[in-house]
Amino acid sequence: MTHKMKLAVGIDIGGTNTVFGLVDEKGSCLAQNSIKTGDFPVVEDFVDKVQKGVNALISNFKDSEIIGMGIGAPNANFYTGTIEHAPNLKWKGIVPLVTLFEAYFDFPISLTNDANAAAMGERIYGAAQGVNDLVMVTLGTGLGSGFVVNGDLVYGHDGFAGELGHVIVEKNGRQCGCGNKGCLETYASATGIVKTAKEFLAKSKDSVLADLPEITSKAIADAALQGDKLALEIFDYTSDKLGFGLANMVAITSPKLIVLFGGLAQSGDLILKPTKKYMEQYLLKTFKDKIQIVPSQLNAADAAILGASSLAWQTLS
Amino acid sequence: MTHKMKLAVGIDIGGTNTVFGLVDEKGSCLAQNSIKTGDFPVVEDFVDKVQKGVNALISNFKDSEIIGMGIGAPNANFYTGTIEHAPNLKWKGIVPLVTLFEAYFDFPISLTNDANAAAMGERIYGAAQGVNDLVMVTLGTGLGSGFVVNGDLVYGHDGFAGELGHVIVEKNGRQCGCGNKGCLETYASATGIVKTAKEFLAKSKDSVLADLPEITSKAIADAALQGDKLALEIFDYTSDKLGFGLANMVAITSPKLIVLFGGLAQSGDLILKPTKKYMEQYLLKTFKDKIQIVPSQLNAADAAILGASSLAWQTLS
Repeated sequence: MTHKMKLAVGIDIGGTNTVFGLVDEKGSCLAQNSIKTGDFPVVEDFVDKVQKGVNALISNFKDSEIIGMGIGAPNANFYTGTIEHAPNLKWKGIVPLVTLFEAYFDFPISLTNDANAAAMGERIYGAAQGVNDLVMVTLGTGLGSGFVVNGDLVYGHDGFAGELGHVIVEKNGRQCGCGNKGCLETYASATGIVKTAKEFLAKSKDSVLADLPEITSKAIADAALQGDKLALEIFDYTSDKLGFGLANMVAITSPKLIVLFGGLAQSGDLILKPTKKYMEQYLLKTFKDKIQIVPSQLNAADAAILGASSLAWQTLS
Repeated sequence: MTHKMKLAVGIDIGGTNTVFGLVDEKGSCLAQNSIKTGDFPVVEDFVDKVQKGVNALISNFKDSEIIGMGIGAPNANFYTGTIEHAPNLKWKGIVPLVTLFEAYFDFPISLTNDANAAAMGERIYGAAQGVNDLVMVTLGTGLGSGFVVNGDLVYGHDGFAGELGHVIVEKNGRQCGCGNKGCLETYASATGIVKTAKEFLAKSKDSVLADLPEITSKAIADAALQGDKLALEIFDYTSDKLGFGLANMVAITSPKLIVLFGGLAQSGDLILKPTKKYMEQYLLKTFKDKIQIVPSQLNAADAAILGASSLAWQTLS
């Protein structure tokens, strides 16, 4: 008797690209494709294009069993299977995405936001395998986060839990796009660290950064790696804010593991070490020296598809 | 055919008293008793005394089925069934409380800290019935909290999650007993509000509080209820800190309901209304006007036993 190989479909919907693929139980992405999200202002056309793409991939794996589909998308509501008022997508209002896909597929379909999908991806395939309590922090343009508690994603009563980026770490601090001031993501994100660099450079030009036509988070990381003092101070300042936000979060959820993902997290020890140092400093004694901060172990190129597909495996368990 | 009445045993261990009782499914405490915790410096003697007391209560309900026992205690670890280094108890080190009780009883026994027990009590019998995502905040001498997410208590990886009282709301703020500065409980607790009153009275004597030999949180509440301006400002200040801490917590867990319990919560609208106002002000837009803050609906006299006993019902479900 032969066992059919089991595969999960993962779809990640971003403002620019939508990527989709087939993933096996070990987290190998065996086939994938992508389309431009913006080419489909009508969501029904988008769903039709994606389902054709997914079915084309599946047709090459006739001997496999598709166990389900997970979709990661901005402003996604797990409970209702809808995308709600996503500012970076062309579809306005409330879009019943799961219902639209269910017309084409027989297997179970789950939708959640991309940060939650990333957290579950890390738990199913990555740095947090077997860990029941973890937090995934994505340091990208903004700061996204996904929480796993008792082995399950934390959706909150409305499906929108996990907004660590909008925890206020400085009262009357930097203006955030959300309307509040001092949100963690105004400091700990690619945008935030560039803002910090500009503030620091206004006070001192003693840095290789002063000569650059444009400051990026990558340029700051490169300068810091070369030992540029101001760049190192910028990382220290950023890590202080992040460590403070993480310590306050730990007091509530006490995770075993904090996984950092995204551009800024690729700076490795530049951000990991000082963030850990500051977090320990602010932590309640009960939690000191217990909580690890580690970089993501998902292949960055496949991470979005892996995260989305992990929802399908999670639903099975 | 007759159905046996089902009862759960609840035991609440405090530094001064240990109370225990039998509770039915609707949350009525049908029988209870108490002993002085401090009379038993040897934990085995304590367990023997309590088991005799519990068995005496059970002997009056011979036609009932005891479904289990829940124990609430300070520094309790749900995972290991132990009390660990509790500063207010005479038993030092790590005490294997569940194992000690299991020698006397056949039914399942669960142990957790008192704040978690209170949260589950509110979910099983009180203000949060049927609510899967809630936070219980106990405003007593300190600030305790218990979190329910997806219908389950949040224990964290080590069993010690839920320390909302030690979220830092003011960097370099008031010295906390934990060693850190600016913890929420240094402001939002009976101790905290008295400290605020003393700070405010150092600046202005224009208050009925200025004439009191001793300031208590009850005296501040009484003065505020009489319209004393300074007392109202003290509540406003306290509520600002609490509302800020709650808003940051909501961004992470998005509860449907926040239940306030304890002495200060009995001040009712004095604390509920301004806390809600400030929380809304600091909340991310996604969560505005969605989250209720309500007072506990458990009878204060029975609340500790009810909370502990709810663990037994929770284990069943």
